[in-house]
Amino acid sequence: MTHRKVLWISAHPSTRSLNHALTSEGIAALRSNGIEVLSSDLYRMGWNPVLDGESYGETVEDFHPTNSVRRAYVENRLPADVRAEQGKIRASDAVVLQFPLWWYGVPAILKGWFDRVLHSGFAFGTDPDTGTRLRFENGPFRGKRALVITTLGDRPQAIGPRGKSGELHELLFGLLHGTLAYTGFDVLDPLAIPSADRLTDDGFREVRDEVESRLWQIFTSTPIPYRPQFAGEYTEQWALADHVLPGQTGLSIHIDHKKAGCLHE
Amino acid sequence: MTHRKVLWISAHPSTRSLNHALTSEGIAALRSNGIEVLSSDLYRMGWNPVLDGESYGETVEDFHPTNSVRRAYVENRLPADVRAEQGKIRASDAVVLQFPLWWYGVPAILKGWFDRVLHSGFAFGTDPDTGTRLRFENGPFRGKRALVITTLGDRPQAIGPRGKSGELHELLFGLLHGTLAYTGFDVLDPLAIPSADRLTDDGFREVRDEVESRLWQIFTSTPIPYRPQFAGEYTEQWALADHVLPGQTGLSIHIDHKKAGCLHE
Repeated sequence: MTHRKVLWISAHPSTRSLNHALTSEGIAALRSNGIEVLSSDLYRMGWNPVLDGESYGETVEDFHPTNSVRRAYVENRLPADVRAEQGKIRASDAVVLQFPLWWYGVPAILKGWFDRVLHSGFAFGTDPDTGTRLRFENGPFRGKRALVITTLGDRPQAIGPRGKSGELHELLFGLLHGTLAYTGFDVLDPLAIPSADRLTDDGFREVRDEVESRLWQIFTSTPIPYRPQFAGEYTEQWALADHVLPGQTGLSIHIDHKKAGCLHE
Repeated sequence: MTHRKVLWISAHPSTRSLNHALTSEGIAALRSNGIEVLSSDLYRMGWNPVLDGESYGETVEDFHPTNSVRRAYVENRLPADVRAEQGKIRASDAVVLQFPLWWYGVPAILKGWFDRVLHSGFAFGTDPDTGTRLRFENGPFRGKRALVITTLGDRPQAIGPRGKSGELHELLFGLLHGTLAYTGFDVLDPLAIPSADRLTDDGFREVRDEVESRLWQIFTSTPIPYRPQFAGEYTEQWALADHVLPGQTGLSIHIDHKKAGCLHE
C-alpha cells in the first residue's frame, strides 16, 4: 500500500466528549495502519468561522464574499489560517469530518471552515485555459475521499427511511452532495451514531469498532454513486435530463441506484 | 389588526449587498404596515457563533453542550448576548431569517445563533410538571411564525423538483422542520432568490416586490402543513406510523399533502 494521508477535522467543544474519544481512537487506528494523519481540531485551534471583509483588508461596503476572496487567493493575500487548511487538504488523500449534529447540521465553527476555506478559485471554478467547469467529477479535489462521522441525540429510527428527521443522506445533502461531491470528493456513506447521549460502555465499544471498520475501508469502499454532472444526465440549467428517471423527484434521484447495490459492504 | 412584532435576523458581511438591500427594504415595508420590527443584524452586532464552555465558566473537560447550557439557563447565568436574543424571540410574533445560502446552508454566524440561542430548556424540553414533551406542536414557540428568505448563486431550475441542488424545502429540511417546526414555529414556505449574482435592476425590483408580497402575508398565509408529531401519525421511536403513506419514504412524507394545496396563495 502506498503512503497515504488523511486530514481529520473535528469540532466538539469538550475534551471529555464522545466525539473527542472517537477522534482520538480514530486517529490512533489510522496511524496504527500506517496512515499519516493531519488534524484540524477546530475548537482547540480557536478557528475563526466568520467570513468577513476584515481578514481581506476590505471595508463592510466593498467586501464581496465570492469576488474579494477569489482575488485575495489569486494575489496570494489569503489569511494564514485559511492557507494552512488549504495546504492540509492538498496534502491529503482523504478527509474525515467528525462532529456532533447540532440542529441537523454541522456546528457553526465547522460551517465556517467550509465558508472560509472552500472558496471560488480554490475549491471550484472555471479553468482559465480550457473553460472547463471545475466541479463534481471535474472538481479540484477529485481522487480524494470524504467520510462524515456524526453523533446525534435522535434515536436510530428517527433517522431511518421513515424517521421524522429524515435519513442522513437526505438531511446532509447540502454537505454530502452540494459541498463535498461538488468540489470533487468521492463521498463515502456517512456514519451516524444516534442516541449518543445514552451510550453505555458496551455501546461505546460497538461504536468505536464501527468507526474503525469504516476507517479500514476508507480507501477501498464504494463511494455514493452520485450521478456525474457532465455526462449528459443533466441539462444546461442543472436539472436532471428528461430521459433520466422521467417524472421522478426527490433528492435520491441524484444517486444512480443501479450502482448503489454494494454501498459500504 | 392587533399590534404585531417581527424579529428580522440577517447575516451578510457586506452593507452593499443584495441581502442588505432586501433587509432594509423588508424592514421598511413591515414598519410602513404598522408592524414593529426588532432586528438582529448578526455581522453588525459582531455576534459570537461559537458554543463553548468559556461563556459558561466551564473548562474544556467539563463543558457539556446540552446539560451545561440548560443548567446555566435555569440558574440565570446565560451570557448577556444569548439572553438578549431570547428576549427578542419571546417578544415577537414572527421571525424572518434572511441570509445568503453558503454551501447550501446558513452562514456560520447564523448557524451559531441557532447553536447558542436555541438550547434545551428554552427552545425545547420537557414540562417538569406534566411531563409533556415541548416540541413541534407543543413547542415553546407555537403561535409564532417563521419565514426564510435566502439568496443563492444557483439558477432557478437547479433548485427545482429535479434540480441538482434539490428543492429548498428538502435542502433546508434540517432548518425548516428539524429546527423551526421542532421548536414550535409555524413555518412558511421559504422564499429563494436564485441567480442572485446576476440580478439586473429590473430583476431586483421583481425580487423586492416578491419579498414585500410575502411580508404582507406573514400573518395570514398557510404554513407548511408538517404532520403533527403527537397525534398518532408517528411511532414512539419517531418514525412515521405504518398506516400513514404505507411504504413511502423521502422527506416529503412529513408534509400532509392533502393540506398543502393552497400553500402561499
